[in-house]
Amino acid sequence: MSTPHVQRMSRLMAKTLREDPADAETLSHRLLVRAGYVRRSSAGVWTWLPLGKRVLDNVSRVVREEMDAIGAQEVLLPALLPKEPYEVSGRWSEYGDLLFRLRDRKGADYLLGPTHEEIFTLVVKDQCTSYKDLPVMLYQIQTKYRDEARPRSGVLRGREFQMKDSYSFDVSDEGLAQSYALHRAAYQRIFTRLGLDHRIVSAVSGAMGGSASEEFLAPAEAGEDTFADCPSCDYAANTEAVTFALTPAAGDHGPVEELDTPDTPTIESLAALLGVPASATLKNLLVKVDGEIVAVGVPGDREVDLGKLGEHLAPAVVELVTAEDFEGRPDLVRGYVGPQGLDKVRYLADPRVAPGTAWVTGANKADAHARNVVCGRDFEVDRYLDVVVVEPGDPCPSCGAGLRLDRAIEIGHIFQLGRKYADAFGLDVLGKEGKPVRVTMGSYGIGVSRAVAALAEQTADERGLSWPAAVAPADVHVVAAGKAVPLALAEQAASALSEAGLRVLLDDRPGLSPGVKLTDAELIGVPWILVAGRRSADGVVELQHRATGHREELALPEALTRLTPVPR
Amino acid sequence: MSTPHVQRMSRLMAKTLREDPADAETLSHRLLVRAGYVRRSSAGVWTWLPLGKRVLDNVSRVVREEMDAIGAQEVLLPALLPKEPYEVSGRWSEYGDLLFRLRDRKGADYLLGPTHEEIFTLVVKDQCTSYKDLPVMLYQIQTKYRDEARPRSGVLRGREFQMKDSYSFDVSDEGLAQSYALHRAAYQRIFTRLGLDHRIVSAVSGAMGGSASEEFLAPAEAGEDTFADCPSCDYAANTEAVTFALTPAAGDHGPVEELDTPDTPTIESLAALLGVPASATLKNLLVKVDGEIVAVGVPGDREVDLGKLGEHLAPAVVELVTAEDFEGRPDLVRGYVGPQGLDKVRYLADPRVAPGTAWVTGANKADAHARNVVCGRDFEVDRYLDVVVVEPGDPCPSCGAGLRLDRAIEIGHIFQLGRKYADAFGLDVLGKEGKPVRVTMGSYGIGVSRAVAALAEQTADERGLSWPAAVAPADVHVVAAGKAVPLALAEQAASALSEAGLRVLLDDRPGLSPGVKLTDAELIGVPWILVAGRRSADGVVELQHRATGHREELALPEALTRLTPVPR
Repeated sequence: MSTPHVQRMSRLMAKTLREDPADAETLSHRLLVRAGYVRRSSAGVWTWLPLGKRVLDNVSRVVREEMDAIGAQEVLLPALLPKEPYEVSGRWSEYGDLLFRLRDRKGADYLLGPTHEEIFTLVVKDQCTSYKDLPVMLYQIQTKYRDEARPRSGVLRGREFQMKDSYSFDVSDEGLAQSYALHRAAYQRIFTRLGLDHRIVSAVSGAMGGSASEEFLAPAEAGEDTFADCPSCDYAANTEAVTFALTPAAGDHGPVEELDTPDTPTIESLAALLGVPASATLKNLLVKVDGEIVAVGVPGDREVDLGKLGEHLAPAVVELVTAEDFEGRPDLVRGYVGPQGLDKVRYLADPRVAPGTAWVTGANKADAHARNVVCGRDFEVDRYLDVVVVEPGDPCPSCGAGLRLDRAIEIGHIFQLGRKYADAFGLDVLGKEGKPVRVTMGSYGIGVSRAVAALAEQTADERGLSWPAAVAPADVHVVAAGKAVPLALAEQAASALSEAGLRVLLDDRPGLSPGVKLTDAELIGVPWILVAGRRSADGVVELQHRATGHREELALPEALTRLTPVPR
Repeated sequence: MSTPHVQRMSRLMAKTLREDPADAETLSHRLLVRAGYVRRSSAGVWTWLPLGKRVLDNVSRVVREEMDAIGAQEVLLPALLPKEPYEVSGRWSEYGDLLFRLRDRKGADYLLGPTHEEIFTLVVKDQCTSYKDLPVMLYQIQTKYRDEARPRSGVLRGREFQMKDSYSFDVSDEGLAQSYALHRAAYQRIFTRLGLDHRIVSAVSGAMGGSASEEFLAPAEAGEDTFADCPSCDYAANTEAVTFALTPAAGDHGPVEELDTPDTPTIESLAALLGVPASATLKNLLVKVDGEIVAVGVPGDREVDLGKLGEHLAPAVVELVTAEDFEGRPDLVRGYVGPQGLDKVRYLADPRVAPGTAWVTGANKADAHARNVVCGRDFEVDRYLDVVVVEPGDPCPSCGAGLRLDRAIEIGHIFQLGRKYADAFGLDVLGKEGKPVRVTMGSYGIGVSRAVAALAEQTADERGLSWPAAVAPADVHVVAAGKAVPLALAEQAASALSEAGLRVLLDDRPGLSPGVKLTDAELIGVPWILVAGRRSADGVVELQHRATGHREELALPEALTRLTPVPR
């Protein structure tokens, strides 16, 4: 038994709107609401109306097929999860306000799952006892919950959202690498089949823990991520993961020379006074790391990304210094700090502050700077960190060409977690030699509802949505542009197309002008629009390709032969 | 692209257990855990492992097809819902502890949806403005939450569960009746296709409000509902909804006669002393209804169902009386109350206490009863209510034959809600005459995860699960009962079956005896079991039909022709 293929607009729960919703910031948000795909229930929580639900299902189907194809097994875990496993992993507290927490009638603590590493680890611990049971890959397509501080951009960043999460379990690092490679290839096929333009970029693992990780990014203006890619080689990375090669410099420098620089507490004032570029000066940012003051040195023309600094030093807590921190510290002169006088302070620096480079920097006394301060001669760097904000034109870590920066939406993320969760829960299996072997894990996610928004962002135009065939809510949108004869011809076309296996949206709404119906059809964005209009009496329809705007008048039988079912 | 059809047991996440889980009370709970379909995550919250997920999906698919076939549109509403609409309807408080409540990071109140009448009403209010937009039917298959006081019986009564809920919106009572009839017929097709033995019974509407309602019950020992059905006609009802016809009696009775009955505060002691059947005595239960004491009269051999009493009188609160309530009430003599002396107390009664019937009852003084107390002559009934516990043999309200009582699982419930929610949210559409018309609603539910448990209850036997073809996790279970030749033949059979479009479970596990594998196959309960065993060298397999136990040895090609794909 199959589902009916003709959906009549006269009954469809998809009220189109002429105006953008007041709070909509991004194209996909505006259009998905205006075209009747989604409606807001509460902040970051959405109702999927029939058209939206179909697109969501189409995305899920492609994801499911490719996960099945690599041998992953589909399961369904609860969204309502007990606190204890998340206490064991530490994430009950690490997640902070991002976690929805609740109590049941007996006072027991629960959370709404943001991601399920802990629970999958426990499932495998229950199910697998021997190396012979591995490798195994499990996945689910499930509703996830994150209490975002600023839910925004419609379904792009919701608090309740659909996600495919999968987990691999192996006995060896080689096995993990293989499970990771299987997922990586499956993700490429998934996004290609969905029609999503995407890039694979190096990423930092962040709160998830683990070693290697890559992101799948869909370039789009509305994206919240920035990635760097190289025009000359295949390097691409989230800007958070871009590195700069540490290259010691050779060269003779004169001795340190102190300069009288009154009233120059900023890089700009200093560079202007001395007539040197800001890039020749060394900026020393003071921060507290778990309460200890440390200095971070970067060239004067660069900004420190405090988020990156925090990730490098995690789980230590990074804070800015306050006026109080300078009390009783005569060695720290605000605005005039230089690394050559910081004996009691740990010094972290950007790789651009390489051994052998010479700098203008603070002289550790008010209104004074020093010139020819040479790294490795006059000061030492305790640790190099990539913490500057990446800028367009920065050198590619791979080939040295100038990097480009672009905005993108994160649609997938794959992690080699390693043994972090297996350690936390004691997940061992009996190895070949009869001894327990600790399992190593991978974790892999696709934002299913976010992929819908990303597709909308990439394919929409000023007239509305324009779906790739694989995900469109219907294959063809038949418009009855008129009563009587046009309506009869539209009905005839809809029946014939439906019988041929196409999914048809039929605009049979009475009392609307052809113009209104065509505007709605373009807004809704089904790949083909077939209009039965003024030449209906001759059996002639207009066939319009939504993406290209190409239109052609054809006899109905000819138009029908142009439309074939999309393989699903 | 299609999903792979051979699932190898060597990799399948379905560890079978020889022992019943300690806390398992029902057959389905024991077997679904033992056969590796589900695992408990926390009380009443379950993980669906691959086999369980497939059965769940198969049930969902049938439900979806039949809902689509009656023109219902699939949507997906959030599970995380704001408090406000449930305050408007009153259910934020009415649900009491059954509701999971939580707060977000900003302190706003939310709930996890137990059922979505409020939100669907708001969706339709947003989408529909004219009578031309109606009727409309919407549905979703979604995770629901209820914080049950005693979650039990595995997935039969969980706190997180899968449900299909749908809602109809009509402008007239006739329209609602038609939407209700469409759902009723769709539910019959769904349960028939799933292979569930089921009965449609009259039900009470309970907390949902509204008028007409029927339940779909699956007879099973493990059921928590009891229903009455008539062996002579088609009457069937939840015992909570069984009525007794009020039939006035004719006949002459002598005057009321007071009897000295020392020490007879109970029906048993009274009946014994007087030598009359308990059914000839009138028992008067005192309860408080919103704080007012009222009496409820039933024949002495019957029990009052306080749940039914509460539902009849809702939203009034019904409580039992305490010793303190008798203080200052000399008219109420504990153990010797009779309706003929209750001037200040409202008198409710079972229809068996009909006008013209005569009773032995309390004389309203200690140690005394009265005989020949005639209803309508010596006392009046203020209101008749069906509140007695129904017993086997009670007369059918339709034909009078003795009713049977059976246990059953509630798998579906359909309600004509009427205008309760439309009134609460002001859901009107513009009618034909240009005036606003209040919308009338129906609400319809199927417990999808519960249907899996109900199917297990009805079809399992002492050896394990035994699924109907439509929902089985695979079509055929191929067992390699041996290494080398049997394994090769099993692989050959699995490939051939898979190519023919069947979903195959292949037991390729090394190192297990044929006996263990066959025991597992019977436990897992796929409809057909094909064993490549000791006659493999001759190309002969054993084909076993799980439900009947019928076995036959056949050449493999002959066995293959017996197995054909199940239409899906």
